[in-house]
Amino acid sequence: MIQLIAFDADDTLWTNQDLYDMTQERFAGILSRYHDRDWVVERLFEVEMRNLQYFGYGIKAFTLSMIETAIELTEGRITGGEIQNILDYAHQMMRAPVQLLPDVREVVAGLADRFPLMIITKGDLLDQQSKVARSGLGDYFQAVEIVSHKTPRIYADILGRFQLLPGAFVMVGNSLKSDILPVVEIGAQAVHIPYHSTWAHEEMPAANPSRPAYHEIEKIRQLPPLLTHL
Amino acid sequence: MIQLIAFDADDTLWTNQDLYDMTQERFAGILSRYHDRDWVVERLFEVEMRNLQYFGYGIKAFTLSMIETAIELTEGRITGGEIQNILDYAHQMMRAPVQLLPDVREVVAGLADRFPLMIITKGDLLDQQSKVARSGLGDYFQAVEIVSHKTPRIYADILGRFQLLPGAFVMVGNSLKSDILPVVEIGAQAVHIPYHSTWAHEEMPAANPSRPAYHEIEKIRQLPPLLTHL
Repeated sequence: MIQLIAFDADDTLWTNQDLYDMTQERFAGILSRYHDRDWVVERLFEVEMRNLQYFGYGIKAFTLSMIETAIELTEGRITGGEIQNILDYAHQMMRAPVQLLPDVREVVAGLADRFPLMIITKGDLLDQQSKVARSGLGDYFQAVEIVSHKTPRIYADILGRFQLLPGAFVMVGNSLKSDILPVVEIGAQAVHIPYHSTWAHEEMPAANPSRPAYHEIEKIRQLPPLLTHL
Repeated sequence: MIQLIAFDADDTLWTNQDLYDMTQERFAGILSRYHDRDWVVERLFEVEMRNLQYFGYGIKAFTLSMIETAIELTEGRITGGEIQNILDYAHQMMRAPVQLLPDVREVVAGLADRFPLMIITKGDLLDQQSKVARSGLGDYFQAVEIVSHKTPRIYADILGRFQLLPGAFVMVGNSLKSDILPVVEIGAQAVHIPYHSTWAHEEMPAANPSRPAYHEIEKIRQLPPLLTHL
Protein backbone atom coordinates (compact mmCIF):
# COMPACT_ATOMS: atom_id res chain seq x y z
CA MET A 1 0.00 0.00 0.00
CA ILE A 2 1.76 3.18 -1.23
CA GLN A 3 1.52 6.13 1.15
CA LEU A 4 4.11 8.50 -0.30
CA ILE A 5 5.70 8.95 -3.73
CA ALA A 6 8.85 11.03 -3.96
CA PHE A 7 10.32 12.40 -7.17
CA ASP A 8 13.83 13.48 -7.94
CA ALA A 9 13.66 16.83 -9.75
CA ASP A 10 16.60 17.49 -12.13
CA ASP A 11 16.31 15.31 -15.27
CA THR A 12 13.31 13.52 -13.79
CA LEU A 13 10.72 16.33 -13.78
CA TRP A 14 12.63 18.90 -15.84
CA THR A 15 15.79 19.10 -17.92
CA ASN A 16 18.97 20.04 -16.11
CA GLN A 17 22.06 18.20 -17.31
CA ASP A 18 21.62 19.69 -20.80
CA LEU A 19 22.16 23.16 -19.32
CA TYR A 20 25.39 22.06 -17.64
CA ASP A 21 26.54 20.26 -20.81
CA MET A 22 25.85 23.34 -22.91
CA THR A 23 27.66 25.63 -20.46
CA GLN A 24 30.60 23.27 -20.34
CA GLU A 25 30.95 23.48 -24.13
CA ARG A 26 30.87 27.27 -23.98
CA PHE A 27 33.50 27.13 -21.23
CA ALA A 28 35.71 24.89 -23.38
CA GLY A 29 35.23 27.45 -26.16
CA ILE A 30 36.70 30.21 -23.96
CA LEU A 31 39.77 28.08 -23.31
CA SER A 32 40.10 26.79 -26.88
CA ARG A 33 43.10 29.03 -27.59
CA TYR A 34 44.92 27.34 -24.69
CA HIS A 35 43.81 23.69 -24.73
CA ASP A 36 41.66 21.28 -26.68
CA ARG A 37 38.08 20.60 -25.64
CA ASP A 38 38.47 17.10 -24.18
CA TRP A 39 41.39 18.09 -21.98
CA VAL A 40 39.43 21.07 -20.61
CA VAL A 41 36.36 18.95 -19.87
CA GLU A 42 38.47 16.30 -18.14
CA ARG A 43 40.30 18.81 -15.98
CA LEU A 44 37.05 20.63 -15.09
CA PHE A 45 35.60 17.35 -13.86
CA GLU A 46 38.71 16.76 -11.73
CA VAL A 47 38.38 20.20 -10.15
CA GLU A 48 34.65 19.63 -9.52
CA MET A 49 35.40 16.36 -7.74
CA ARG A 50 38.16 17.96 -5.68
CA ASN A 51 35.74 20.73 -4.64
CA LEU A 52 32.67 18.55 -4.09
CA GLN A 53 33.12 18.08 -0.36
CA TYR A 54 33.46 21.83 0.17
CA PHE A 55 31.18 23.32 -2.47
CA GLY A 56 28.53 20.61 -2.93
CA TYR A 57 26.26 20.50 -5.98
CA GLY A 58 24.67 23.20 -8.07
CA ILE A 59 25.36 26.18 -10.29
CA LYS A 60 27.44 28.17 -7.81
CA ALA A 61 29.77 25.24 -7.17
CA PHE A 62 30.02 24.55 -10.92
CA THR A 63 30.86 28.19 -11.62
CA LEU A 64 33.57 28.39 -8.96
CA SER A 65 35.08 25.18 -10.37
CA MET A 66 35.01 26.59 -13.92
CA ILE A 67 36.85 29.73 -12.76
CA GLU A 68 39.41 27.69 -10.84
CA THR A 69 39.98 25.41 -13.84
CA ALA A 70 40.35 28.38 -16.17
CA ILE A 71 43.05 29.93 -13.99
CA GLU A 72 44.89 26.63 -13.58
CA LEU A 73 44.80 25.68 -17.26
CA THR A 74 46.01 29.13 -18.38
CA GLU A 75 48.54 29.51 -15.57
CA GLY A 76 46.78 32.72 -14.63
CA ARG A 77 46.74 34.21 -18.13
CA ILE A 78 42.93 34.09 -18.36
CA THR A 79 41.64 37.68 -18.51
CA GLY A 80 39.12 39.41 -16.31
CA GLY A 81 36.83 39.71 -19.32
CA GLU A 82 36.94 35.96 -19.93
CA ILE A 83 36.13 35.26 -16.28
CA GLN A 84 33.26 37.71 -16.58
CA ASN A 85 31.96 35.50 -19.41
CA ILE A 86 31.94 32.54 -17.03
CA LEU A 87 30.02 34.60 -14.45
CA ASP A 88 27.55 35.56 -17.18
CA TYR A 89 26.98 31.86 -17.89
CA ALA A 90 26.17 31.36 -14.19
CA HIS A 91 23.60 34.14 -14.28
CA GLN A 92 22.09 32.70 -17.46
CA MET A 93 21.86 29.24 -15.87
CA MET A 94 20.15 30.70 -12.79
CA ARG A 95 17.54 32.42 -14.95
CA ALA A 96 17.08 29.68 -17.55
CA PRO A 97 13.43 28.71 -17.94
CA VAL A 98 12.46 25.44 -16.27
CA GLN A 99 11.64 23.04 -19.09
CA LEU A 100 9.37 20.22 -17.95
CA LEU A 101 10.01 16.83 -19.51
CA PRO A 102 7.18 15.45 -21.70
CA ASP A 103 3.95 14.45 -19.91
CA VAL A 104 5.30 15.50 -16.50
CA ARG A 105 2.56 17.99 -15.72
CA GLU A 106 -0.28 15.57 -16.58
CA VAL A 107 1.26 12.61 -14.76
CA VAL A 108 2.09 14.58 -11.62
CA ALA A 109 -1.34 16.27 -11.54
CA GLY A 110 -3.05 12.88 -11.92
CA LEU A 111 -0.96 11.19 -9.22
CA ALA A 112 -1.46 14.12 -6.82
CA ASP A 113 -5.16 13.23 -6.73
CA ARG A 114 -4.34 9.71 -5.57
CA PHE A 115 -1.19 9.93 -3.42
CA PRO A 116 0.77 12.39 -1.29
CA LEU A 117 3.73 13.49 -3.42
CA MET A 118 7.05 15.03 -2.48
CA ILE A 119 10.30 16.11 -4.14
CA ILE A 120 13.70 14.97 -2.87
CA THR A 121 16.53 16.70 -4.67
CA LYS A 122 20.20 17.52 -4.27
CA GLY A 123 21.71 20.89 -5.02
CA ASP A 124 21.75 24.52 -4.07
CA LEU A 125 18.96 25.33 -1.66
CA LEU A 126 17.85 28.58 -3.30
CA ASP A 127 18.30 27.37 -6.87
CA GLN A 128 16.21 24.25 -6.32
CA GLN A 129 13.47 26.13 -4.46
CA SER A 130 13.36 28.64 -7.27
CA LYS A 131 13.05 25.89 -9.88
CA VAL A 132 10.18 24.24 -8.01
CA ALA A 133 8.41 27.62 -7.92
CA ARG A 134 9.09 28.40 -11.58
CA SER A 135 8.05 24.89 -12.68
CA GLY A 136 4.44 25.62 -11.77
CA LEU A 137 4.29 22.18 -10.12
CA GLY A 138 4.77 23.35 -6.53
CA ASP A 139 1.14 22.92 -5.50
CA TYR A 140 1.15 19.21 -6.36
CA PHE A 141 3.84 18.44 -3.80
CA GLN A 142 3.20 18.37 -0.08
CA ALA A 143 6.90 18.67 0.77
CA VAL A 144 10.14 19.57 -0.96
CA GLU A 145 13.29 18.22 0.64
CA ILE A 146 16.62 19.59 -0.56
CA VAL A 147 19.50 17.45 0.65
CA SER A 148 23.26 17.59 0.27
CA HIS A 149 23.66 13.86 -0.42
CA LYS A 150 21.25 11.03 -1.22
CA THR A 151 22.29 8.19 1.03
CA PRO A 152 20.29 5.32 2.59
CA ARG A 153 20.49 7.26 5.86
CA ILE A 154 18.91 10.36 4.30
CA TYR A 155 16.01 8.32 2.90
CA ALA A 156 15.55 6.51 6.20
CA ASP A 157 15.43 9.86 8.02
CA ILE A 158 12.72 11.13 5.68
CA LEU A 159 10.63 7.98 6.19
CA GLY A 160 11.10 8.39 9.93
CA ARG A 161 9.90 11.96 9.81
CA PHE A 162 6.76 10.92 7.90
CA GLN A 163 6.35 7.85 10.13
CA LEU A 164 6.29 5.52 7.13
CA LEU A 165 7.46 1.95 6.73
CA PRO A 166 9.78 1.41 3.74
CA GLY A 167 7.14 -0.66 1.94
CA ALA A 168 4.84 2.37 1.80
CA PHE A 169 7.39 4.55 -0.02
CA VAL A 170 8.25 4.81 -3.72
CA MET A 171 11.10 6.94 -5.10
CA VAL A 172 11.16 7.93 -8.78
CA GLY A 173 14.30 9.30 -10.44
CA ASN A 174 16.88 9.20 -13.19
CA SER A 175 20.02 8.49 -11.16
CA LEU A 176 20.74 4.88 -10.20
CA LYS A 177 23.36 6.06 -7.74
CA SER A 178 21.25 8.68 -5.97
CA ASP A 179 17.59 7.84 -6.52
CA ILE A 180 17.46 4.06 -6.85
CA LEU A 181 20.18 2.05 -5.09
CA PRO A 182 20.05 3.80 -1.66
CA VAL A 183 16.25 3.46 -1.71
CA VAL A 184 16.39 -0.24 -2.55
CA GLU A 185 18.93 -0.64 0.24
CA ILE A 186 16.46 0.50 2.90
CA GLY A 187 13.78 -1.84 1.56
CA ALA A 188 11.62 0.73 -0.23
CA GLN A 189 10.59 0.67 -3.88
CA ALA A 190 12.29 2.62 -6.64
CA VAL A 191 11.38 3.42 -10.23
CA HIS A 192 14.23 4.32 -12.57
CA ILE A 193 13.54 6.56 -15.57
CA PRO A 194 16.91 6.96 -17.35
CA TYR A 195 17.75 10.32 -18.89
CA HIS A 196 19.76 10.53 -22.11
CA SER A 197 22.63 12.42 -20.46
CA THR A 198 24.12 11.64 -17.05
CA TRP A 199 26.77 13.65 -15.22
CA ALA A 200 29.95 11.57 -15.00
CA HIS A 201 29.79 11.70 -11.18
CA GLU A 202 26.40 9.94 -11.21
CA GLU A 203 27.38 7.23 -13.70
CA MET A 204 27.30 3.61 -12.57
CA PRO A 205 28.75 0.43 -14.07
CA ALA A 206 26.35 -1.39 -16.39
CA ALA A 207 23.65 -3.52 -14.78
CA ASN A 208 24.67 -7.06 -13.96
CA PRO A 209 22.56 -10.21 -13.56
CA SER A 210 22.46 -9.80 -9.78
CA ARG A 211 21.18 -6.26 -9.97
CA PRO A 212 19.00 -5.19 -7.05
CA ALA A 213 15.24 -5.21 -7.46
CA TYR A 214 13.91 -1.95 -8.82
CA HIS A 215 11.55 -0.98 -11.61
CA GLU A 216 12.65 0.61 -14.83
CA ILE A 217 10.48 2.52 -17.27
CA GLU A 218 11.34 4.64 -20.32
CA LYS A 219 8.88 7.48 -19.92
CA ILE A 220 7.10 9.05 -16.97
CA ARG A 221 3.70 8.33 -18.57
CA GLN A 222 4.33 4.63 -17.83
CA LEU A 223 4.45 5.43 -14.10
CA PRO A 224 0.70 5.53 -13.23
CA PRO A 225 -0.04 2.07 -14.72
CA LEU A 226 3.09 0.66 -13.00
CA LEU A 227 1.96 2.05 -9.62
CA THR A 228 -1.31 0.13 -9.80
CA HIS A 229 0.76 -3.07 -9.62
CA LEU A 230 2.95 -2.03 -6.65
CA MET B 1 4.87 25.72 28.46
CA ILE B 2 7.92 25.58 26.15
CA GLN B 3 8.00 22.52 23.90
CA LEU B 4 10.73 23.48 21.42
CA ILE B 5 13.68 25.89 21.51
CA ALA B 6 15.30 26.79 18.20
CA PHE B 7 18.69 28.46 17.83
CA ASP B 8 20.08 30.45 14.98
CA ALA B 9 23.62 29.23 14.30
CA ASP B 10 25.95 31.86 12.80
CA ASP B 11 26.93 34.48 15.41
CA THR B 12 24.54 32.89 17.91
CA LEU B 13 26.27 29.55 18.55
CA TRP B 14 29.56 30.25 16.77
CA THR B 15 31.38 33.17 15.17
CA ASN B 16 30.70 33.79 11.50
CA GLN B 17 30.53 37.47 10.55
CA ASP B 18 34.13 37.97 11.70
CA LEU B 19 35.26 35.54 8.98
CA TYR B 20 33.37 37.49 6.31
CA ASP B 21 34.64 40.81 7.68
CA MET B 22 38.23 39.56 7.66
CA THR B 23 37.91 38.18 4.11
CA GLN B 24 36.37 41.44 2.96
CA GLU B 25 39.40 43.35 4.25
CA ARG B 26 41.74 40.98 2.43
CA PHE B 27 39.64 41.45 -0.70
CA ALA B 28 39.90 45.24 -0.39
CA GLY B 29 43.64 44.74 -0.01
CA ILE B 30 43.82 43.01 -3.41
CA LEU B 31 42.02 45.94 -5.01
CA SER B 32 43.92 48.62 -3.09
CA ARG B 33 46.00 49.62 -6.12
CA TYR B 34 42.78 50.40 -7.98
CA HIS B 35 40.41 51.85 -5.37
CA ASP B 36 40.25 52.81 -1.71
CA ARG B 37 38.90 50.41 0.87
CA ASP B 38 35.55 52.03 1.60
CA TRP B 39 34.60 52.29 -2.05
CA VAL B 40 35.43 48.60 -2.60
CA VAL B 41 33.40 47.52 0.43
CA GLU B 42 30.44 49.62 -0.66
CA ARG B 43 30.47 48.27 -4.20
CA LEU B 44 30.86 44.68 -2.99
CA PHE B 45 27.75 45.08 -0.85
CA GLU B 46 25.85 46.43 -3.86
CA VAL B 47 26.87 43.42 -5.96
CA GLU B 48 25.90 41.05 -3.13
CA MET B 49 22.45 42.62 -2.90
CA ARG B 50 22.00 42.46 -6.69
CA ASN B 51 22.94 38.75 -6.62
CA LEU B 52 21.02 37.81 -3.49
CA GLN B 53 17.88 36.59 -5.23
CA TYR B 54 19.93 34.34 -7.51
CA PHE B 55 22.83 33.24 -5.33
CA GLY B 56 21.32 33.34 -1.82
CA TYR B 57 23.52 33.40 1.29
CA GLY B 58 26.81 31.76 2.11
CA ILE B 59 30.45 31.52 1.15
CA LYS B 60 29.91 30.50 -2.48
CA ALA B 61 27.59 33.44 -3.13
CA PHE B 62 30.00 35.79 -1.34
CA THR B 63 32.93 34.52 -3.41
CA LEU B 64 31.13 34.89 -6.74
CA SER B 65 30.16 38.43 -5.74
CA MET B 66 33.77 39.26 -4.81
CA ILE B 67 34.98 38.02 -8.21
CA GLU B 68 32.28 39.98 -10.02
CA THR B 69 33.10 43.13 -8.05
CA ALA B 70 36.82 42.73 -8.73
CA ILE B 71 36.24 42.52 -12.49
CA GLU B 72 33.86 45.49 -12.48
CA LEU B 73 36.04 47.73 -10.35
CA THR B 74 39.17 47.03 -12.43
CA GLU B 75 37.34 47.09 -15.77
CA GLY B 76 38.64 43.58 -16.37
CA ARG B 77 42.27 44.35 -15.51
CA ILE B 78 42.25 42.07 -12.47
CA THR B 79 44.67 39.18 -13.11
CA GLY B 80 44.03 35.46 -13.00
CA GLY B 81 46.44 35.24 -10.08
CA GLU B 82 44.48 37.82 -8.12
CA ILE B 83 41.22 35.97 -8.76
CA GLN B 84 42.95 32.81 -7.60
CA ASN B 85 43.63 34.62 -4.33
CA ILE B 86 39.90 35.23 -3.95
CA LEU B 87 39.21 31.53 -4.60
CA ASP B 88 41.83 30.66 -2.00
CA TYR B 89 39.95 32.81 0.52
CA ALA B 90 36.79 30.82 -0.25
CA HIS B 91 38.59 27.56 0.44
CA GLN B 92 40.03 28.96 3.67
CA MET B 93 36.57 30.10 4.80
CA MET B 94 35.13 26.65 4.06
CA ARG B 95 37.81 24.98 6.17
CA ALA B 96 37.99 27.54 8.97
CA PRO B 97 37.55 25.95 12.39
CA VAL B 98 34.13 26.45 13.96
CA GLN B 99 34.68 28.70 16.98
CA LEU B 100 31.94 28.37 19.54
CA LEU B 101 30.94 31.55 21.35
CA PRO B 102 31.63 31.60 25.12
CA ASP B 103 29.50 29.26 27.29
CA VAL B 104 27.63 27.87 24.27
CA ARG B 105 28.55 24.23 24.85
CA GLU B 106 27.56 24.27 28.54
CA VAL B 107 24.29 26.15 27.97
CA VAL B 108 23.23 23.99 25.01
CA ALA B 109 24.14 20.76 26.80
CA GLY B 110 22.18 21.83 29.86
CA LEU B 111 19.10 22.88 27.91
CA ALA B 112 19.15 19.68 25.84
CA ASP B 113 18.38 17.77 29.06
CA ARG B 114 15.24 19.83 29.62
CA PHE B 115 13.86 20.71 26.16
CA PRO B 116 13.89 19.49 22.55
CA LEU B 117 16.33 21.76 20.70
CA MET B 118 16.72 22.54 17.01
CA ILE B 119 18.79 24.79 14.76
CA ILE B 120 17.19 27.06 12.16
CA THR B 121 19.78 28.71 9.96
CA LYS B 122 20.12 30.40 6.59
CA GLY B 123 22.92 29.75 4.15
CA ASP B 124 24.56 27.16 1.97
CA LEU B 125 23.16 23.71 2.67
CA LEU B 126 26.47 21.85 2.68
CA ASP B 127 28.42 24.57 4.46
CA GLN B 128 25.91 24.82 7.30
CA GLN B 129 25.63 21.04 7.69
CA SER B 130 29.40 20.82 7.80
CA LYS B 131 29.58 23.51 10.49
CA VAL B 132 27.00 21.75 12.65
CA ALA B 133 29.06 18.55 12.37
CA ARG B 134 32.38 20.29 13.06
CA SER B 135 30.91 22.22 16.01
CA GLY B 136 30.56 19.02 18.01
CA LEU B 137 27.08 20.18 19.07
CA GLY B 138 25.13 18.07 16.57
CA ASP B 139 23.95 15.49 19.10
CA TYR B 140 22.20 18.10 21.23
CA PHE B 141 19.82 19.07 18.42
CA GLN B 142 16.92 16.93 17.30
CA ALA B 143 16.59 18.72 13.98
CA VAL B 144 18.61 21.10 11.83
CA GLU B 145 16.61 23.17 9.38
CA ILE B 146 18.53 25.09 6.72
CA VAL B 147 16.30 27.63 5.01
CA SER B 148 16.79 30.16 2.23
CA HIS B 149 14.92 32.96 4.02
CA LYS B 150 13.63 33.48 7.55
CA THR B 151 10.08 34.77 7.12
CA PRO B 152 6.99 34.43 9.35
CA ARG B 153 5.76 31.82 6.82
CA ILE B 154 8.90 29.71 7.23
CA TYR B 155 8.56 29.73 11.03
CA ALA B 156 4.84 28.92 10.81
CA ASP B 157 5.64 25.97 8.50
CA ILE B 158 8.16 24.60 10.98
CA LEU B 159 5.67 24.88 13.86
CA GLY B 160 3.09 23.14 11.66
CA ARG B 161 5.45 20.31 10.94
CA PHE B 162 6.14 19.80 14.64
CA GLN B 163 2.43 20.31 15.46
CA LEU B 164 3.22 23.08 17.93
CA LEU B 165 1.24 26.15 18.94
CA PRO B 166 3.24 29.40 18.72
CA GLY B 167 3.18 29.80 22.49
CA ALA B 168 5.18 26.58 22.87
CA PHE B 169 8.05 27.81 20.69
CA VAL B 170 11.06 29.99 21.53
CA MET B 171 13.59 31.22 18.95
CA VAL B 172 17.04 32.42 20.03
CA GLY B 173 19.28 34.43 17.72
CA ASN B 174 21.40 37.49 17.00
CA SER B 175 19.49 38.96 14.04
CA LEU B 176 16.45 41.12 14.79
CA LYS B 177 15.41 40.92 11.15
CA SER B 178 15.69 37.14 10.74
CA ASP B 179 15.46 35.55 14.18
CA ILE B 180 13.26 37.88 16.23
CA LEU B 181 10.70 39.98 14.33
CA PRO B 182 9.22 37.22 12.11
CA VAL B 183 8.92 34.98 15.19
CA VAL B 184 7.16 37.68 17.22
CA GLU B 185 4.87 38.22 14.24
CA ILE B 186 3.50 34.65 14.41
CA GLY B 187 2.94 34.96 18.16
CA ALA B 188 5.88 32.90 19.36
CA GLN B 189 8.59 34.03 21.78
CA ALA B 190 11.99 35.29 20.76
CA VAL B 191 15.22 35.95 22.63
CA HIS B 192 17.67 38.38 21.07
CA ILE B 193 21.40 38.04 21.82
CA PRO B 194 23.12 40.84 19.86
CA TYR B 195 26.49 40.11 18.28
CA HIS B 196 29.13 42.84 18.05
CA SER B 197 29.21 42.78 14.26
CA THR B 198 26.15 42.55 12.00
CA TRP B 199 26.13 42.20 8.23
CA ALA B 200 24.73 45.41 6.70
CA HIS B 201 21.91 43.38 5.10
CA GLU B 202 20.68 42.25 8.52
CA GLU B 203 20.85 45.67 10.17
CA MET B 204 17.67 47.25 11.47
CA PRO B 205 16.81 50.79 12.57
CA ALA B 206 17.31 51.44 16.30
CA ALA B 207 14.63 50.20 18.66
CA ASN B 208 11.73 52.59 19.21
CA PRO B 209 9.29 52.87 22.12
CA SER B 210 6.68 50.74 20.33
CA ARG B 211 9.09 47.90 19.71
CA PRO B 212 7.49 44.46 19.54
CA ALA B 213 7.66 42.24 22.57
CA TYR B 214 10.76 40.09 22.66
CA HIS B 215 13.43 39.34 25.22
CA GLU B 216 16.95 40.65 25.02
CA ILE B 217 19.97 39.28 26.83
CA GLU B 218 23.67 40.04 26.50
CA LYS B 219 25.14 36.57 26.86
CA ILE B 220 23.86 33.07 26.18
CA ARG B 221 24.50 32.07 29.80
CA GLN B 222 21.56 34.32 30.74
CA LEU B 223 19.25 32.14 28.66
CA PRO B 224 18.53 29.25 31.11
CA PRO B 225 17.40 31.56 33.96
CA LEU B 226 15.29 33.57 31.49
CA LEU B 227 13.57 30.41 30.23
CA THR B 228 12.38 29.51 33.71
CA HIS B 229 10.21 32.68 33.56
CA LEU B 230 8.68 32.04 30.09
